[in-house]
Amino acid sequence: MNFKVAKCDIEDSSPQVILCPEDCAALGLKIGDRVKVKGKTEWVTLYGSSPSIAKKGEARMPQAFLDKHGVAVGDTVEIEHCPKSEAVRFIRKKMDRQKLTESEIYAIIQDILDGKLNDIEISAWLTSLYIAGMDIEEIAYHAKAMVDTGDRLAFTGRPVFDFHSIGGVPGNKITPIVVSIVAAAGLMIPKTSSRAISSACGTSDFVETFCNVDISAEEVKRIAMEVGGVFSWGGSMNLAPVDDLVIRVENPLGINPRAQMLASILSKKMAIGANYLLIDIPTGPGTKVPDREAAHAYVRDFTDLGRLLGINIKCAVTYGGQPVGYAIGPNLEARECIRVLEGQDHPNSVIEKACELAGMLLEMGGIPHGDVRAKELLSSGAAMKKFREIVAAQGGNYDIRSEDLKPGKYVREIRAVKAGYINSVDNKALVAIAKAAGAPNDKGAGILLSKKQGQRVEVDDVVYTIYADSEAKCIRARELAIHYAPFGIEGMVIEKD
Amino acid sequence: MNFKVAKCDIEDSSPQVILCPEDCAALGLKIGDRVKVKGKTEWVTLYGSSPSIAKKGEARMPQAFLDKHGVAVGDTVEIEHCPKSEAVRFIRKKMDRQKLTESEIYAIIQDILDGKLNDIEISAWLTSLYIAGMDIEEIAYHAKAMVDTGDRLAFTGRPVFDFHSIGGVPGNKITPIVVSIVAAAGLMIPKTSSRAISSACGTSDFVETFCNVDISAEEVKRIAMEVGGVFSWGGSMNLAPVDDLVIRVENPLGINPRAQMLASILSKKMAIGANYLLIDIPTGPGTKVPDREAAHAYVRDFTDLGRLLGINIKCAVTYGGQPVGYAIGPNLEARECIRVLEGQDHPNSVIEKACELAGMLLEMGGIPHGDVRAKELLSSGAAMKKFREIVAAQGGNYDIRSEDLKPGKYVREIRAVKAGYINSVDNKALVAIAKAAGAPNDKGAGILLSKKQGQRVEVDDVVYTIYADSEAKCIRARELAIHYAPFGIEGMVIEKD
Repeated sequence: MNFKVAKCDIEDSSPQVILCPEDCAALGLKIGDRVKVKGKTEWVTLYGSSPSIAKKGEARMPQAFLDKHGVAVGDTVEIEHCPKSEAVRFIRKKMDRQKLTESEIYAIIQDILDGKLNDIEISAWLTSLYIAGMDIEEIAYHAKAMVDTGDRLAFTGRPVFDFHSIGGVPGNKITPIVVSIVAAAGLMIPKTSSRAISSACGTSDFVETFCNVDISAEEVKRIAMEVGGVFSWGGSMNLAPVDDLVIRVENPLGINPRAQMLASILSKKMAIGANYLLIDIPTGPGTKVPDREAAHAYVRDFTDLGRLLGINIKCAVTYGGQPVGYAIGPNLEARECIRVLEGQDHPNSVIEKACELAGMLLEMGGIPHGDVRAKELLSSGAAMKKFREIVAAQGGNYDIRSEDLKPGKYVREIRAVKAGYINSVDNKALVAIAKAAGAPNDKGAGILLSKKQGQRVEVDDVVYTIYADSEAKCIRARELAIHYAPFGIEGMVIEKD
Repeated sequence: MNFKVAKCDIEDSSPQVILCPEDCAALGLKIGDRVKVKGKTEWVTLYGSSPSIAKKGEARMPQAFLDKHGVAVGDTVEIEHCPKSEAVRFIRKKMDRQKLTESEIYAIIQDILDGKLNDIEISAWLTSLYIAGMDIEEIAYHAKAMVDTGDRLAFTGRPVFDFHSIGGVPGNKITPIVVSIVAAAGLMIPKTSSRAISSACGTSDFVETFCNVDISAEEVKRIAMEVGGVFSWGGSMNLAPVDDLVIRVENPLGINPRAQMLASILSKKMAIGANYLLIDIPTGPGTKVPDREAAHAYVRDFTDLGRLLGINIKCAVTYGGQPVGYAIGPNLEARECIRVLEGQDHPNSVIEKACELAGMLLEMGGIPHGDVRAKELLSSGAAMKKFREIVAAQGGNYDIRSEDLKPGKYVREIRAVKAGYINSVDNKALVAIAKAAGAPNDKGAGILLSKKQGQRVEVDDVVYTIYADSEAKCIRARELAIHYAPFGIEGMVIEKD
């Protein structure tokens, strides 16, 4: 049946096409059914019915939806009832803990992308993956399906180097440093990053404080070929697009099933054409990977997947039991990151981690003594020069200085109430406090540590400082700081008679 | 913030309250958030925003929604942002295969009922129950929580008898016969039934062809006290109301997790105040319970649950490998059911099953030789008299006769294409064909078998007949009949040299 497209201005609405009740009846639609809409492209979505919003023969859709599917008000679209997705049978199979075939996994991914599976069905899929899991072969099929349902960047002539941190540790601002060192060494590293999902600040959240991260696939390719390095936001390209649809369902549940996480990482890297991939696995209390044993399981999985998918993968198990460096939050992390590139010999944890990871990538690229070479490129200023070139290529200021990045103007110092050694730092509590202060959306918001684990504090020493762009959020963050008390301070005496 | 209620005429819409964008911003609402609405009662729902549908200070809601919550156009309601349900943590715990406490299960059930959990979260809950399961203690807590969040019928003075079939076998029209026999013996049996979920015809779907099943709790109580028996639709009372909300999410997935199924059955029975409960467990290929071993697992679970919940439970494992009797579909089943009560000695499978189950209930009520007594009550006409009293009490015709129930006027006979013995009958295929013919909504639609398993057919004998209320559905059902070929016909020779 043909319909004339009209605009509907309901936002946050689940039915994305509203028809009049007679037209719904004529199409045989029942509540919860989905419709196939054929305009310039074909897509599937939920319909709603309303006698006052849609006239007979009219299909009302939100503007964002019209834009997405390339149809305009007044266009004619064809709408029909969409039969239930066959992929539900394959989801059921996973619920029954069975192994799925390549084509079954592909059908699920394709139907998520096409809108043929609803939230109930996608949630069941993710919950099944969480509980029943996938073996390495299934994860490889999963990653391939996610790549094949999106765009790919095709680099020719030069190998593509890439790296990825599985996250879970706050303040991990090493990406621009690693990319700058590796590109300065002459290797090509078109790094795409994400924004915070549950963390206080993703790489893209702080990189966008000094340059543009929303870069098209063509631009990423051009900058990588010309400058050698990129630090863009992965979401601005259509790489493994099903990932975003899945994250939208993962968020309310607060889960990221291992099979989904591994497939998601590798699909993004395959889509960018990575030949050599380094994986950073932050390990320790409060991270995604509690101990060495769990870390080694990840190393095995990544190594096996690399073999199946034809990517040369190495893993670095790093310490993530407390923040990397001292800063958490967009401007604070950007400032600390640029300070390291400017040549300051502090914070040591950022320098060491960045240089060790960059060194591993250099060695994968055939450059011997990678960590020594990485430190040379950092201390000689070559990395800073490369950083400036990338920033400029991404529309930022070539002459960027760390002092340009300012923390928020609302400030609360948190002081020690007793003296002793800091014997624990709670990552998750620090993240919650930084988010309460406004990170990652408020660019000045975050936390600056004065002390780290193992250091001694006296009564009334500043342990850390909260920054915020608004008074209210600053107060709220301080309340949480008192509630959570993320630093454990103890005397050093273990036993006393 | 206060809002004036106005009407919104979108049906099938997921946001049930539409506000204008400024009001959404003022309440700090983001996409996917839920709002708490306080009118005459308090409830939680999804909101949507639209600048043209809702004016500032106005909350637009569908009429059915207004009715449900007892608010009228022009009323003032208070709306605020609803924080994320804490129950998600407990769902996560079940995803991690942990045992839940009584209060955790209660919180999940309460939040489903209150609308605080969205489809994504409820789907994750059901999928977790399907894969990770629950132990008997958890199922008992689950059943209790479902009872406690709804209404209860309180009978005093007389014990309440009840029975339930877990379903899965088509044509199982025994309920009115069992209830009539048991009530004729002087026991009180206020039986509530369901409509078809995935089957071709639930008990309520065929009982409503000759009397009203949509009866209030007060009426059920009155009829049970006065007449002794009831066969009403459970959905017309607010017994374990969370069940319906859960079924809505189970349907797209086609699952009914064992823990959910057991809790659901027992909660309805506890809510009605059952002291003695008989469970019919149809077993065999094409049912929910494939073999004896699986049936015995159910018997154990029901018996254990009865002990924990204080209900005297007995189980009957019955044969469900082919339909009970010959008729499938509302009018056809009603006719066959009433024929048995009228005293026809056919079909034997219906008589035997009804009398054996009724006999077990009589023995639970202290009446010796229950099955003999049940047959006497049937053959003496006492059961038919009781049936008529119940039908009349439920607004039907006291003088109802089986001939009053007519099959649909569109008819297709399905004939044998070869001679031999029928060695298999596919329940699921018969259900699909009956549904294609229009059952259970089209009351004349269904299937009438001429032959059953083990009988011999000659070429061109009628094996079964399809009835429908519309030509198109009759043709569609016949197409399916040819496609599925639900009867397997073979020679009796097992091996030949």
